[in-house]
Amino acid sequence: MAADQIPGSRTEIRVRYAETDQMGHAHHMNYLAWFELGRTELMRANGVSYAGLEREGVLLPVARAELDYRRGAGYDDLVWVRSRVKQVRSRSVTFEYEAVRAEDEALLARGTTTLVCTDSGLRTRRIPVEAQRILEQLRRAAETGANGPGAQAPASP
Amino acid sequence: MAADQIPGSRTEIRVRYAETDQMGHAHHMNYLAWFELGRTELMRANGVSYAGLEREGVLLPVARAELDYRRGAGYDDLVWVRSRVKQVRSRSVTFEYEAVRAEDEALLARGTTTLVCTDSGLRTRRIPVEAQRILEQLRRAAETGANGPGAQAPASP
Amino acid sequence: MAADQIPGSRTEIRVRYAETDQMGHAHHMNYLAWFELGRTELMRANGVSYAGLEREGVLLPVARAELDYRRGAGYDDLVWVRSRVKQVRSRSVTFEYEAVRAEDEALLARGTTTLVCTDSGLRTRRIPVEAQRILEQLRRAAETGANGPGAQAPASP
Amino acid sequence: MAADQIPGSRTEIRVRYAETDQMGHAHHMNYLAWFELGRTELMRANGVSYAGLEREGVLLPVARAELDYRRGAGYDDLVWVRSRVKQVRSRSVTFEYEAVRAEDEALLARGTTTLVCTDSGLRTRRIPVEAQRILEQLRRAAETGANGPGAQAPASP
Repeated sequence: MAADQIPGSRTEIRVRYAETDQMGHAHHMNYLAWFELGRTELMRANGVSYAGLEREGVLLPVARAELDYRRGAGYDDLVWVRSRVKQVRSRSVTFEYEAVRAEDEALLARGTTTLVCTDSGLRTRRIPVEAQRILEQLRRAAETGANGPGAQAPASP
Repeated sequence: MAADQIPGSRTEIRVRYAETDQMGHAHHMNYLAWFELGRTELMRANGVSYAGLEREGVLLPVARAELDYRRGAGYDDLVWVRSRVKQVRSRSVTFEYEAVRAEDEALLARGTTTLVCTDSGLRTRRIPVEAQRILEQLRRAAETGANGPGAQAPASP
Repeated sequence: MAADQIPGSRTEIRVRYAETDQMGHAHHMNYLAWFELGRTELMRANGVSYAGLEREGVLLPVARAELDYRRGAGYDDLVWVRSRVKQVRSRSVTFEYEAVRAEDEALLARGTTTLVCTDSGLRTRRIPVEAQRILEQLRRAAETGANGPGAQAPASP
Repeated sequence: MAADQIPGSRTEIRVRYAETDQMGHAHHMNYLAWFELGRTELMRANGVSYAGLEREGVLLPVARAELDYRRGAGYDDLVWVRSRVKQVRSRSVTFEYEAVRAEDEALLARGTTTLVCTDSGLRTRRIPVEAQRILEQLRRAAETGANGPGAQAPASP
């Protein structure tokens, strides 16, 4: 598969009323749930089902997260989360994300999360070979820009 | 507009990892957020923007909720929420919902919520005339089945 | 143990900023999480550990919930959740709850939840004998008022 | 007030069932809500009410967050969040946190959040003088260890 055919990584989210706080925007913790949706979509669109990995006893708990918030996301706003693979190691993978307001593509937040691969007892283990191969392919595609905004089709909800 | 042209009320939700609990299904409280998404979509698709009402100082807090749970919703499952207007009064409106698993349309949960109309100081007030007219039209459509599953197109996310 | 010595069922909750919505109060879905805390405390204070039941393969998923909302709970408000056992059957138990604002004991919401007893595969089963005995004792105490507000000591957080 | 009299910053949290995910631990996004509770308690215990600031039109949205996760927090575990002021600037303040399991003080996660001071229109502004004075005092106390674990009394819930 050529790099420019790699399926997109854009996840569309409608800000829920339940996600707003009294400041009138989505509470900052929700971005971690949105980024999680983003990487799940990116992986699924490329043949790695996180639900499937879990059924095989492979977990990917979050070991580190960084978030930079720029603008608030209002209730009922459409938000696009763009997800990319930033780094792949034998036992961990780092994703990076941008959340933008769909209406004007204004940047709402950026972030990264590093996931470690564990067995069902939460002992670290190597990422399964096929998953690692695909993640590495996504990383290279992101590096060359093939996985950038221009190349992205909206993912299913 | 003929009843059978009333736009649909089906909202599609992908169960988030953050929504699961250690029983392995979406925690039961999430259905209230999903039903909220459902009625928002139903209203928006028919010309009543809840965000718009709020900007005019009209709020619709939930006064009562009933939920019956039948099956758990698994992580990454697609869930359809079907929303209908059940009853319209001068100062309140009751919606009813079904959440089904998209894959096989198995019923996950049913529920109703009654919303009261208030001003921004949470004093009850009449539902604005135009909103009430549309809600009443939706109620009649639901009664005659025009707004049932068969008539529904998927709403945007 | 005399009925009036039955340990209390009052759980204290500080409304979190993350729980508020843009209406300026705790979003209505949080009451389901608070009620869950309330029944867990009530059970634990009387010798039934829900975490312990789960480790033995006994689950108590929620089958039905009813909630009536009266007033909003503001950010940083202290809320007391009073929990009582309303009905015990061989395979289900119903709790009832009141959430009041600690400052003036104003009623915020009432509710009930019915939990069914299942095995780890979510097949219904009988409530374990000892748990059922304690739940039945709590039900009788609630009926005679021994477990009412006047008899309650604050539970640990 | 002498530094060693500065009230403590330990907030006690009981992990809610609703906070667990199917991996069997509190979902990683909840730490942001817990840290928020932690800094709110620290501020309130020292005379700065965040709810009070908001009523005066002073907001403190989160601009940046970093989290390192070490161990999972199980359902019903008691977790202590220790909060300290790390840096105070004219328009922002950075807190740091540790979440430990109460039972054995095992480290669950560390994190920092940086909050910017804004008016109600989300335009940055200076931190009010009195609040800044207290935050600066807390920062110095943290630096000298007076606000460390040994000096901490449990905060009210």
